[in-house]
Amino acid sequence: MDRLKALVEDDLKAVNEEILDRMASEVELIPELADYLISSGGKRLRPMLTLAAAKLCAYDGSNHISLAAAVEFIHTATLLHDDVVDGSDLRRGKKAANLVYGNQASVLVGDFLFSRSFQLMVTSGHLRVLDILSNAAAVIAEGEVLQLATANNTATTEDTYLQVIQAKTAALFAAATQVGAVIAERSDAEEEALESYGRNLGIAFQLVDDALDYSGNQAKLGKSVGDDFREGKITLPVVLAFRRGSAEERDFWKRTMEKVDQSDADLEHAMALLEKHGTVAATIERARHYGEIAKDALAIFPESDAREVMQDLVEFVISRAH
Amino acid sequence: MDRLKALVEDDLKAVNEEILDRMASEVELIPELADYLISSGGKRLRPMLTLAAAKLCAYDGSNHISLAAAVEFIHTATLLHDDVVDGSDLRRGKKAANLVYGNQASVLVGDFLFSRSFQLMVTSGHLRVLDILSNAAAVIAEGEVLQLATANNTATTEDTYLQVIQAKTAALFAAATQVGAVIAERSDAEEEALESYGRNLGIAFQLVDDALDYSGNQAKLGKSVGDDFREGKITLPVVLAFRRGSAEERDFWKRTMEKVDQSDADLEHAMALLEKHGTVAATIERARHYGEIAKDALAIFPESDAREVMQDLVEFVISRAH
Repeated sequence: MDRLKALVEDDLKAVNEEILDRMASEVELIPELADYLISSGGKRLRPMLTLAAAKLCAYDGSNHISLAAAVEFIHTATLLHDDVVDGSDLRRGKKAANLVYGNQASVLVGDFLFSRSFQLMVTSGHLRVLDILSNAAAVIAEGEVLQLATANNTATTEDTYLQVIQAKTAALFAAATQVGAVIAERSDAEEEALESYGRNLGIAFQLVDDALDYSGNQAKLGKSVGDDFREGKITLPVVLAFRRGSAEERDFWKRTMEKVDQSDADLEHAMALLEKHGTVAATIERARHYGEIAKDALAIFPESDAREVMQDLVEFVISRAH
Repeated sequence: MDRLKALVEDDLKAVNEEILDRMASEVELIPELADYLISSGGKRLRPMLTLAAAKLCAYDGSNHISLAAAVEFIHTATLLHDDVVDGSDLRRGKKAANLVYGNQASVLVGDFLFSRSFQLMVTSGHLRVLDILSNAAAVIAEGEVLQLATANNTATTEDTYLQVIQAKTAALFAAATQVGAVIAERSDAEEEALESYGRNLGIAFQLVDDALDYSGNQAKLGKSVGDDFREGKITLPVVLAFRRGSAEERDFWKRTMEKVDQSDADLEHAMALLEKHGTVAATIERARHYGEIAKDALAIFPESDAREVMQDLVEFVISRAH
């Protein structure tokens, strides 16, 4: 992660300036709320991916700056709306914005940031880029609705779960890296390689995130352990534990996840069941699989600093789990 | 209104098909919720404005169809989020979508429709159009946040109120008509004329809407009388009544609108105060003023069916109040 930061350091500064610039509004609540979330603690992973992809493609223009900012705005808008939908307590280690500013402000400022992201993309003047990013935004929203529709359903299959995370997480990673190749006017093969890298990295990232929810500590993850459990949100560790479990265990999952009828000791028992069936470890193994695909996707590019950093990033994302 | 429908009838059919087409999703909840709002009772006023503007400009391509659909999607997304923010009971004479499908689904399906609107705009291939519509979307969101920030404030001035409705309503009307001139590649003067027509019509429309909230009947308006009052939402009839009222009357407005401390008889008393100071009538007079500007803006266009229908529409919008 530090090497990624070093690779794109100057560009990232420009992105941060663009972000501050575009957050501005005469309506004070907008920069205030946006600042609460954007300026504090965000890893800027997605915009850095756009910058790194542009570097990998030896792009020498300046459109990658506004596009990276657009990607961060889409991500931030999604977070704001997610927290309203999920009723989360913590985000990036702080009280979630909707608890501080209210759900109403979070919905509307999310809409504002979303609109701003499109304005930023339009400045790039690339219709293909607009197509890719607006498509990603639609896929993300679709994935969030699918997640809502399948929430609390212990019968969720690994396939459906993958469909959800491909849409809600991997689509933006994929678009973020793909546009780097598009603005640099690289070949279809290289564009597809960067799309695949982003998509598979995104899947690995979300799998690890979902594993961490049952194993990480708050400081590491910036959110509460067991959030997904308390919300009855079905993620892969539970999908697998439900399938591998006894009838009695399945009843436990149905009570706690479908009915969200939980007592204080239930989280501990849930974690013991995940441990018994090794499903957190299995989730991380799955992440490793997608991570390998991401690394291999970049093999068609000649060796370079950018390529090495991007491939190492895969390792970093997976090693967060330890 | 009927003449407007007749003017754009064939195009409107194509827009409705495009809308149905773009609402489709494998995630069933999306077309279900979108259909609940879009297919039922919507006047399609904004997309019809795009179609009429294109006709006025003798546009002979097909981009006006997808742009009109995009305009309706932006509007629908805004309605969905508005109802979540306002906690409204009725929308277009039916139970608001968030009460039927929940706030979570309304937020996420709104995001989906918003993304779809950008995908639709991208298909037009006009960067100027993308610029105008993405700018309008940002202004709308900004206006909604401003409205939230000034809500329940009886000290709101007529200027601030106008700023809010210019942003939350008139900006989309303006963009909807302006893009008609842009795709037809008309002169700057004609583009500005259509922007002015849409903006002033939008202001008049919102003023009448706010007046109707204290005078219309549910069937006419598709929402409950006194909604704004019950939410403590400050609109022009109240802004004026507060200014024109006695100290005792101002105390009444402060209690009911700022503290939202209301008893059953308060709405009736509020309406009596508005009547006493003639502020509903004054609001409609203001609407008439902006309506006149809208009509005159079109004067630079040669006489045509389209121009006559668009000018008559102004009268219709204002006559809703009677």
